[in-house]
Amino acid sequence: MPELRKDLISSRWVIIATERGKRPSDFNWEPPPRQSGFCPFCPGNEEKTPPEIIAYRNGGGLPNTPGWRVRVVANKFPALVIEGDLSRQGEGMYEKMTGVGAHEVIIETPHHDQTLATMPQHQVEDVLWAYRERILELKKDPRLQYVLIFKNRGEAAGASLEHPHSQLIATPIIPKRVQEEVDGARQYYDYKERCVFCDMIQQELAHKRRVVSTNDHFVALAPFASRFPFETWVLPRMHNASFEDARKEEYGSLARILRETLQRIERVLASPPYNFVIHTSPFREGDRLHYHWHLEITPRLIQIAGFEWGTGFYINPTPPEEAAQYLRDAALTTDC
Amino acid sequence: MPELRKDLISSRWVIIATERGKRPSDFNWEPPPRQSGFCPFCPGNEEKTPPEIIAYRNGGGLPNTPGWRVRVVANKFPALVIEGDLSRQGEGMYEKMTGVGAHEVIIETPHHDQTLATMPQHQVEDVLWAYRERILELKKDPRLQYVLIFKNRGEAAGASLEHPHSQLIATPIIPKRVQEEVDGARQYYDYKERCVFCDMIQQELAHKRRVVSTNDHFVALAPFASRFPFETWVLPRMHNASFEDARKEEYGSLARILRETLQRIERVLASPPYNFVIHTSPFREGDRLHYHWHLEITPRLIQIAGFEWGTGFYINPTPPEEAAQYLRDAALTTDC
Repeated sequence: MPELRKDLISSRWVIIATERGKRPSDFNWEPPPRQSGFCPFCPGNEEKTPPEIIAYRNGGGLPNTPGWRVRVVANKFPALVIEGDLSRQGEGMYEKMTGVGAHEVIIETPHHDQTLATMPQHQVEDVLWAYRERILELKKDPRLQYVLIFKNRGEAAGASLEHPHSQLIATPIIPKRVQEEVDGARQYYDYKERCVFCDMIQQELAHKRRVVSTNDHFVALAPFASRFPFETWVLPRMHNASFEDARKEEYGSLARILRETLQRIERVLASPPYNFVIHTSPFREGDRLHYHWHLEITPRLIQIAGFEWGTGFYINPTPPEEAAQYLRDAALTTDC
Repeated sequence: MPELRKDLISSRWVIIATERGKRPSDFNWEPPPRQSGFCPFCPGNEEKTPPEIIAYRNGGGLPNTPGWRVRVVANKFPALVIEGDLSRQGEGMYEKMTGVGAHEVIIETPHHDQTLATMPQHQVEDVLWAYRERILELKKDPRLQYVLIFKNRGEAAGASLEHPHSQLIATPIIPKRVQEEVDGARQYYDYKERCVFCDMIQQELAHKRRVVSTNDHFVALAPFASRFPFETWVLPRMHNASFEDARKEEYGSLARILRETLQRIERVLASPPYNFVIHTSPFREGDRLHYHWHLEITPRLIQIAGFEWGTGFYINPTPPEEAAQYLRDAALTTDC
């Protein structure tokens, strides 16, 4: 019989549709053909992107020339723009606001063919430091309320370029789902005087069935009310509301578990398209004992259809306990 | 400059990304190759589906034999099942519930190659009456709280079969987005003592820029805070919380405007994949002066990427005023 499960934090219900039970080999999707030709993110083509905002280089080297390890540039077709005043006004009964914000691209490596799963661990760590540096900078802008860091990998996940990259969008409002998650966590905290994510980590580590892997500072797990097959969350063991406030040693630890988790996903599901999103506290969120930053990875194995759009209620054909088992059992590359 | 717009009812913000401005011809998607071979929904193959729940036939004819105009069957791989007790329980700190509900398929026509845009108007009306009849029946079940009627057309919209069909899922809880919409509408009503949808219809008809078409009982429009390019809502002019409570003459009128709106979308966008969802009141929603049923059509022209998943905040490259203009100007088939 199918099971309905409630997400603790958002109160969203999910159908674990056992009658449709799916194993990794049941997901059919075509890996896209290898793109050939020009790539604006490859070294030597720096002038084809907007000028770099930051870059990490070995030795000196001029901005916008090769020699970088990680490079952050403005998105060429930005959804929000940094110039301009933030002004809010009505239009009849409606509300609108100028589209002030930031939309940046983090080019993760000079190597077109690498991925976060195959690149060396120190390279993944560079990417995480670039995220942190940009968040800290954008946080100073009083017009902005939130920074969302996300990655679309593969066409089906919304990526339009193959070269490994993540994106950042800074918004002048707190997005609705972010506010909902923060509010849900606060409700639990108000009642229990404990962080819901801390409690969840403790329960999952005790039960083990949904744990994918752990290291000194992080846990990777399949959430109880997973919306998608093989959905995986990476959470810091130590309570902390904001990604950018992690301790120095945590970034290395996160690089290790993220790379390893993506390797597991690539092994089990044959390099599927996926998204990941860093869930972190809004900039001006008060004491923040209730919120706990984390990273959510969602492989894109099934189409999101009318039902999900209409209800915000998901049908997931793979129970998270089974997904966690497949991911735990995956062989890993030992090098790093 | 991009513009942020707030949806009146859900308080969701949308980025109208003018810098990425897209016209109909900019959306590239491949129409799927014509499926050949066996179709379980075609007449003559009735035994390949679960037994029919209802069917409309000319003259007599036995159940589960050809001769039907519209046929409703249980989904062969149901997300929720009608048998069983509704029981809710904890699992550690989590909540779960048995997956009781209904998951049905409405086969819209015996003709494999027709669509809601090309079939005769009376056939579309038959489909709408089938929706109504099933809702009224399922509403009697005290375990159920909501019925969602939706259609996925095209693979990219989540359809796994080509033969024209819609689906129905009845749930033992009120889905989160449905509750949010009802609550948003109630908030407006509490403040203004008027229905937000009625006010919106009035403002849109006065301004005309976002109106696609109208008839005696309905308005089709591009909503102010459209999440997707060419998103179109069809709303009854007369206040009514529930689809199944519409007056007899409204179903004919809805069939006409729905068929015509889908024709416009197919002309302008070359038969794109799309979803539609009927937004109607939960079964036990009290006086319901605040809620107003409607149908939302969302062509699936762009990938939903990490940003949208992470935030519930959409980037729409086509301003709704432009989308409405294209749809208004589309030539229609005059037959019906």
